[in-house]
Amino acid sequence: MSHEIKGINEECGVFGVWNHKDASQMTYYGLHSLQHRGQEGAGIVSLENNRLHGHRGLGLLHEVFANPDLLTQLKGHSAIGHVRYGTSGEGDIINIQPFLFRFYNAEIALAHNGNLINAKTLRKELEEDGAIFHSNSDTEILMHLIRRSNKDTFIDKLSEALNIVKGGFAYLLLTDDAMYATLDPNAFRPLSIGRMSNGAYVVTSETCALDTIGATFVRDVEPGEIIEISDNGLKSYRYTDETMYSICSMEYIYFARPDSNIKGINVHSARKRMGKTLAKEHPVEADMVIGVPNSSLSAASGYAEASSIPYEMGLVKNQYVARTFIQPTQELREEGVRLKLSAVRGVVEGKRVILVDDSIVRGTTSKRIVRLLKEAGATEVHVRISSPPLAYPCFYGIDIQTKEELIAANYSTDKIREIIEADSLEFLTEEGLINSIGLKLDAPYNGLCMAYFNGDYPTPLYDYEYRENKED
Amino acid sequence: MSHEIKGINEECGVFGVWNHKDASQMTYYGLHSLQHRGQEGAGIVSLENNRLHGHRGLGLLHEVFANPDLLTQLKGHSAIGHVRYGTSGEGDIINIQPFLFRFYNAEIALAHNGNLINAKTLRKELEEDGAIFHSNSDTEILMHLIRRSNKDTFIDKLSEALNIVKGGFAYLLLTDDAMYATLDPNAFRPLSIGRMSNGAYVVTSETCALDTIGATFVRDVEPGEIIEISDNGLKSYRYTDETMYSICSMEYIYFARPDSNIKGINVHSARKRMGKTLAKEHPVEADMVIGVPNSSLSAASGYAEASSIPYEMGLVKNQYVARTFIQPTQELREEGVRLKLSAVRGVVEGKRVILVDDSIVRGTTSKRIVRLLKEAGATEVHVRISSPPLAYPCFYGIDIQTKEELIAANYSTDKIREIIEADSLEFLTEEGLINSIGLKLDAPYNGLCMAYFNGDYPTPLYDYEYRENKED
Amino acid sequence: MSHEIKGINEECGVFGVWNHKDASQMTYYGLHSLQHRGQEGAGIVSLENNRLHGHRGLGLLHEVFANPDLLTQLKGHSAIGHVRYGTSGEGDIINIQPFLFRFYNAEIALAHNGNLINAKTLRKELEEDGAIFHSNSDTEILMHLIRRSNKDTFIDKLSEALNIVKGGFAYLLLTDDAMYATLDPNAFRPLSIGRMSNGAYVVTSETCALDTIGATFVRDVEPGEIIEISDNGLKSYRYTDETMYSICSMEYIYFARPDSNIKGINVHSARKRMGKTLAKEHPVEADMVIGVPNSSLSAASGYAEASSIPYEMGLVKNQYVARTFIQPTQELREEGVRLKLSAVRGVVEGKRVILVDDSIVRGTTSKRIVRLLKEAGATEVHVRISSPPLAYPCFYGIDIQTKEELIAANYSTDKIREIIEADSLEFLTEEGLINSIGLKLDAPYNGLCMAYFNGDYPTPLYDYEYRENKED
Amino acid sequence: MSHEIKGINEECGVFGVWNHKDASQMTYYGLHSLQHRGQEGAGIVSLENNRLHGHRGLGLLHEVFANPDLLTQLKGHSAIGHVRYGTSGEGDIINIQPFLFRFYNAEIALAHNGNLINAKTLRKELEEDGAIFHSNSDTEILMHLIRRSNKDTFIDKLSEALNIVKGGFAYLLLTDDAMYATLDPNAFRPLSIGRMSNGAYVVTSETCALDTIGATFVRDVEPGEIIEISDNGLKSYRYTDETMYSICSMEYIYFARPDSNIKGINVHSARKRMGKTLAKEHPVEADMVIGVPNSSLSAASGYAEASSIPYEMGLVKNQYVARTFIQPTQELREEGVRLKLSAVRGVVEGKRVILVDDSIVRGTTSKRIVRLLKEAGATEVHVRISSPPLAYPCFYGIDIQTKEELIAANYSTDKIREIIEADSLEFLTEEGLINSIGLKLDAPYNGLCMAYFNGDYPTPLYDYEYRENKED
Repeated sequence: MSHEIKGINEECGVFGVWNHKDASQMTYYGLHSLQHRGQEGAGIVSLENNRLHGHRGLGLLHEVFANPDLLTQLKGHSAIGHVRYGTSGEGDIINIQPFLFRFYNAEIALAHNGNLINAKTLRKELEEDGAIFHSNSDTEILMHLIRRSNKDTFIDKLSEALNIVKGGFAYLLLTDDAMYATLDPNAFRPLSIGRMSNGAYVVTSETCALDTIGATFVRDVEPGEIIEISDNGLKSYRYTDETMYSICSMEYIYFARPDSNIKGINVHSARKRMGKTLAKEHPVEADMVIGVPNSSLSAASGYAEASSIPYEMGLVKNQYVARTFIQPTQELREEGVRLKLSAVRGVVEGKRVILVDDSIVRGTTSKRIVRLLKEAGATEVHVRISSPPLAYPCFYGIDIQTKEELIAANYSTDKIREIIEADSLEFLTEEGLINSIGLKLDAPYNGLCMAYFNGDYPTPLYDYEYRENKED
Repeated sequence: MSHEIKGINEECGVFGVWNHKDASQMTYYGLHSLQHRGQEGAGIVSLENNRLHGHRGLGLLHEVFANPDLLTQLKGHSAIGHVRYGTSGEGDIINIQPFLFRFYNAEIALAHNGNLINAKTLRKELEEDGAIFHSNSDTEILMHLIRRSNKDTFIDKLSEALNIVKGGFAYLLLTDDAMYATLDPNAFRPLSIGRMSNGAYVVTSETCALDTIGATFVRDVEPGEIIEISDNGLKSYRYTDETMYSICSMEYIYFARPDSNIKGINVHSARKRMGKTLAKEHPVEADMVIGVPNSSLSAASGYAEASSIPYEMGLVKNQYVARTFIQPTQELREEGVRLKLSAVRGVVEGKRVILVDDSIVRGTTSKRIVRLLKEAGATEVHVRISSPPLAYPCFYGIDIQTKEELIAANYSTDKIREIIEADSLEFLTEEGLINSIGLKLDAPYNGLCMAYFNGDYPTPLYDYEYRENKED
Repeated sequence: MSHEIKGINEECGVFGVWNHKDASQMTYYGLHSLQHRGQEGAGIVSLENNRLHGHRGLGLLHEVFANPDLLTQLKGHSAIGHVRYGTSGEGDIINIQPFLFRFYNAEIALAHNGNLINAKTLRKELEEDGAIFHSNSDTEILMHLIRRSNKDTFIDKLSEALNIVKGGFAYLLLTDDAMYATLDPNAFRPLSIGRMSNGAYVVTSETCALDTIGATFVRDVEPGEIIEISDNGLKSYRYTDETMYSICSMEYIYFARPDSNIKGINVHSARKRMGKTLAKEHPVEADMVIGVPNSSLSAASGYAEASSIPYEMGLVKNQYVARTFIQPTQELREEGVRLKLSAVRGVVEGKRVILVDDSIVRGTTSKRIVRLLKEAGATEVHVRISSPPLAYPCFYGIDIQTKEELIAANYSTDKIREIIEADSLEFLTEEGLINSIGLKLDAPYNGLCMAYFNGDYPTPLYDYEYRENKED
Repeated sequence: MSHEIKGINEECGVFGVWNHKDASQMTYYGLHSLQHRGQEGAGIVSLENNRLHGHRGLGLLHEVFANPDLLTQLKGHSAIGHVRYGTSGEGDIINIQPFLFRFYNAEIALAHNGNLINAKTLRKELEEDGAIFHSNSDTEILMHLIRRSNKDTFIDKLSEALNIVKGGFAYLLLTDDAMYATLDPNAFRPLSIGRMSNGAYVVTSETCALDTIGATFVRDVEPGEIIEISDNGLKSYRYTDETMYSICSMEYIYFARPDSNIKGINVHSARKRMGKTLAKEHPVEADMVIGVPNSSLSAASGYAEASSIPYEMGLVKNQYVARTFIQPTQELREEGVRLKLSAVRGVVEGKRVILVDDSIVRGTTSKRIVRLLKEAGATEVHVRISSPPLAYPCFYGIDIQTKEELIAANYSTDKIREIIEADSLEFLTEEGLINSIGLKLDAPYNGLCMAYFNGDYPTPLYDYEYRENKED
């Protein structure tokens, strides 16, 4: 399902390049491939002769750089960039990254994908000690910790700081002589290294950006690792050895682009296997299988293939819906005005439909789609979800932070079926999901984070501990 | 394939509504569903108490109406709208429709989808008689003919004018007491009538707009017919009886939205049948079938289903490419920067691929995609086109007007295969196309226009006669 | 007084240049000097190798050409331009000039300053004969008349058309081989010819544009004259010999820039003489003379000089008021929020003030300023107007078309004084005005149009005849 | 002379209001009156129920708030605002004030007019102690000092901080329960308190803003004073007793609006007296006196009055020059294209002119104007400057920081006369300036800062000490 429709979102994508004569251009194209990870704002910082130059703005990448001069002015052979996911009401440019810090003796840029779980505590402590924060974002915390560190080298300062922050994070930093990429001890978020034919190193949240710019995949950043890329090449450091893989399973299910590989596994193929497994776990007699465009099409085609039921285009997504589009009033919506998604009457009329979706959050979208299909003449709508029920919030970088908004945290599958007005409803099992993804790391759940499904959080929850206790 | 990528385009979509309290809003939503038919500009004219109000602008619908007040100001119970397809270099607002004419004793708005083939001659004659044209568009001609008619009633003036213009046209007109919809004698372009639950009549280029606003399909406008919708209901007139169906087959193949029905036939289903027929006509051994997103996905799934070869997502289209996006230089493109379409390495690497596309125009795009797939590791790429070779220009509303730009007009299939670097290349036969679409009208080719494939133009060519002769 | 504050406005300025390598740039700078004559919209049309290129838009010149490429694209050695004055509610780009007409055998651009008094009649006649108008403006009429003329040469067609239109007009036309400038038989509006050091000819509404681009004044266009400028140099034609000078006296009083000369008389100097004459006609004891910025400062300094009373800056105009400025609500205005004009308390407190203004239209502005001064502590405010009472509408190009809005058409001077709350009020006499301007042409009022003051219209009123009769 | 033309500029204006239901609107109008003090950017922060809301942006006030919703969203009964003067190349929104700091336990907004002379040292010290700055501006320093203070109350923290910063400063602060206004110990910059009829307190850089919103002047803030305005009314504190008036004389000469009063003296009147004194000190025989619009018109009228030589409008400034205006190339400028200022040929031709200007910085503008007048036919141009020669840089808030750019620091008056091609050149004496202003405070130069004229800086120079020594 498209990110605008579904109520879950991830927090950002990062991209960096070292030693390419068109560094900021490359970063622009790289971020372009990561745009699905964040549409609130974007920014790029480049390095030219020990000076950092930056531009950032609200909106999509092409809006932020609508004036091509803005990109041309970001001169230099290295650059990092960021696309930010937007929560409502926080649309302030001050939160758009990369952050660019200018000190009397140094300049540093910082970009962040993830969420810290001890941010509130750290911020309070730092402010009590005189620190001044300028954004609402967690990201600044790392810089304060670095600047207050008494260690001698930058790597040591950074390592010290990374041992203080907790949660999910993939950081990119750019200084006047190196680019740094680092990942939390659980590797919640993806972060990969690539290389271009001219020798330039690239770091990106998803591998799809490597294909866009013609780079070759080198390897993934490891949990607890700091990668330093400089004119001396790539060096690896470890800020901690207490690591354990807990890769966000929602990246495979929903967030990542189907052409990305995460830890060696192609996302489209993983989704198609989820669909196949789902067909085996929960078969049903019907005339056709349809997927919710675009994120569930892979799973739907897998379901169709495994069940030998025809795969059809029963829903069409309008490609021209923009943020500035004038939305129908509630009254017009009730009269039937639908802009984003249409059911294809000529396909579904008089048919029994299997509707494959990747997840159910609040249930409102599912209900809307089931209705769409029935109004278009579908005689039965069997909903099949290619992931287990979402019943627990995430604190590592996905924007679902309370149980209240999760329908599966509050209702049984049968009750949800009733609410969304489906003829049947089934979810993929946890085991089915883990096997379909096919990750085989030596860690619980083969290296996946399954916390949204079973509440088994791979770390202590720090600032969120109390909240969870209160809510339970 | 997306309209921005492919080099063929159609000229516009029209939408109108009579007697709805939110007429201009409905028109906005209706045009939204027709946005794929034209992205150069858009406009709406509404009727309020005998006065017409209009707004039009360059760009996508949501850009033209970025300020919601512009829509609110288009008051009244009836409205017509237009989305215009853009040829390069003509981006002048003066050509954006609907045209709004204010006379001392009347006001008329006019919107047009199609292309006249005697426009040049008519314009010269009219100018020699003192007429002044204000746009480059053919559309104004009809109004000059109406205003110069000596007939008494508006219907008679309009009928007289419609007998003078030749070619492909679907016109919508709005006067101070009625809305008129009319179609050329061959019904080249689609034009359908719908009705809303409150009794409002709707006219639209494609039926997908009916679904968007919750209207019910009534019937298609017939060739040679004038539909008059007023407070007295719907009346039908005929301006000519010399009619013969020649519905544009490219509408089924490529232009129309998959959720539209044209003359009762669903577009997605027709495309899927084309894919199935193509599989039967031109089978090949391979590991997977992939379609060029988005317009060829239906045909690809049909091919997969009929051949029992897995349907995979081997190409991903970036959803965030905008007109203002900063494009890579030629140098960067050669280095491998690709923004619109990515091949999915994790899917195609080491595989034999059947690539289904709906058509080949110049061949450059096909060549680019074949290369993309091979660079991503595909071992074989077998191209299957779900329509016959495009070898003749169209003069009825599609922007292919010279043979020079058509690769199939100049090269054999085998030579094209070589040019696009495919391992094999096959086209759907004419018969396969006609049968797949499944139209059964009592006219040549069952009522389809097949001129681009075989040069059998259903009308004299008027202004284009000489050109054709010269070229042959 | 600034044009935004005062309720009278003129309709436009025109500028053209022939044979300069930076023709459109020159036109841009020329129009810049004429911006005070119209702020609704602007446009430029250039001539390059028999092709006309145009751009026009709503807003100030620098807004219309905010993107410098738009100007660069207007290539060629000749160009004409226009700035348009804006009446509310007509802000449609379709009315912005120059109009650019493309015929199958010719291209013509047309710009117009003035107002026709038989436009309604002509337009109706033309429409009844099949003509289609595209703007609300009078200007198109001339082009229809030219195109419908049966004469052989362009000059003859133009002459014929100019004998049909009546009223006030200064036209500039650009064809593929010449630029034409022509003036109505009364020379209501100014139109001057200049020449640049490289030989290029320039035509402009006001001479201030000549100084801006470093051109030398050659002569004024004469009433009834057509100037043709081509690669063969400048030729003069006469379309009529029935001419009589009636130069708009409001140009001297209020419209024109103080650095312009009209028929050889400098505008600032004329205004200063009006102030001096006013001081002699209507002396009063006071501590200081202040003028309403900016248009009345010349007259105020003249009054001060002639009366030997100090000239002070008692009112300050804010230079940063823009159209998009957020205006105070009525409530805030009543609380005293004033944005455009401030009285200088430190100057006027406790003083007797002579306030010089150039005219009174509705009286509301005068009342506001008198109050401002009294609230700032002025003990007496003696208003002196440097023109006679405005009691009659103008039909030749100034936007005062009904008596209702003219306070002097409805009240005695003493009553007006009471309404505007002044301690005394006096107007310059008609004779005083005529002598101060100092024009000495062999025509009534020495060649000035004094109709707004005495109703003595120099032409029949055509379409306005009935209205005038009805109102009296 | 207009600020855009002259190369000197001041750093900003501040405005605040406490306890007015339309607080942000009032601040908007107040800032509007201070727009001449800074055109790079503007911002407003409002206080609503213990929460601060802010908006700021690049450009003029009306551009920053072009969308009226932005202002409406700044709810609350109190607000402070800022207009920023722009140096080239620093156009980053991050420097636009007021700065809004959100701490876990407090929110504070800060606006600053002036320049610190120990900023570099303080910033380095703070950064070495872990502080992170986010802008290039000095202004943040105060907030770091406040947050790091160990004092108990906000007033004590603020007082401590104010004793550490050195230089010229007028600060406005807004917390969740009070507004603070404070001035440096020399009162370099103006800062006045007013009151509205509803009891609301207002603080403003210039009194002209009081007139704009209908407020009454209460008194000026004193050097070394902190004003606290809260719901308990106005309280005065002193952070130091070591104060000495050194009011910036350039405020009287050039910066302030003529309708402002500074320390009780009206700016226009002071300028007029400077012109009168200049006439007495440096008379010359001529036909007319003209001033450079707009800032020198007061002085010019004073010179005219004292010398009994007519005051004329010999230069006209185009009111429509905007930042986005397309500037002529060097070649076009040499050909005579002049956009901002025109000489009035009809006035100056054949005349001996006295040109009054308020100051000479680099001399380039003066030279340009003298040439303009001579090319327009002036036979003699006698330049009279209504201030002494500018020979020393300013470090307290005016943007002249090196001697290199000051022509009077490098050349004799006679040499300058030669450079600017004037027939004669004279400056007002220091004594003449002091007496014309008429301030009578018990401090050197009657309370004026005369450092730009004589190098007598009223404070140590801290960070600038070395530079000065090096340069001398």
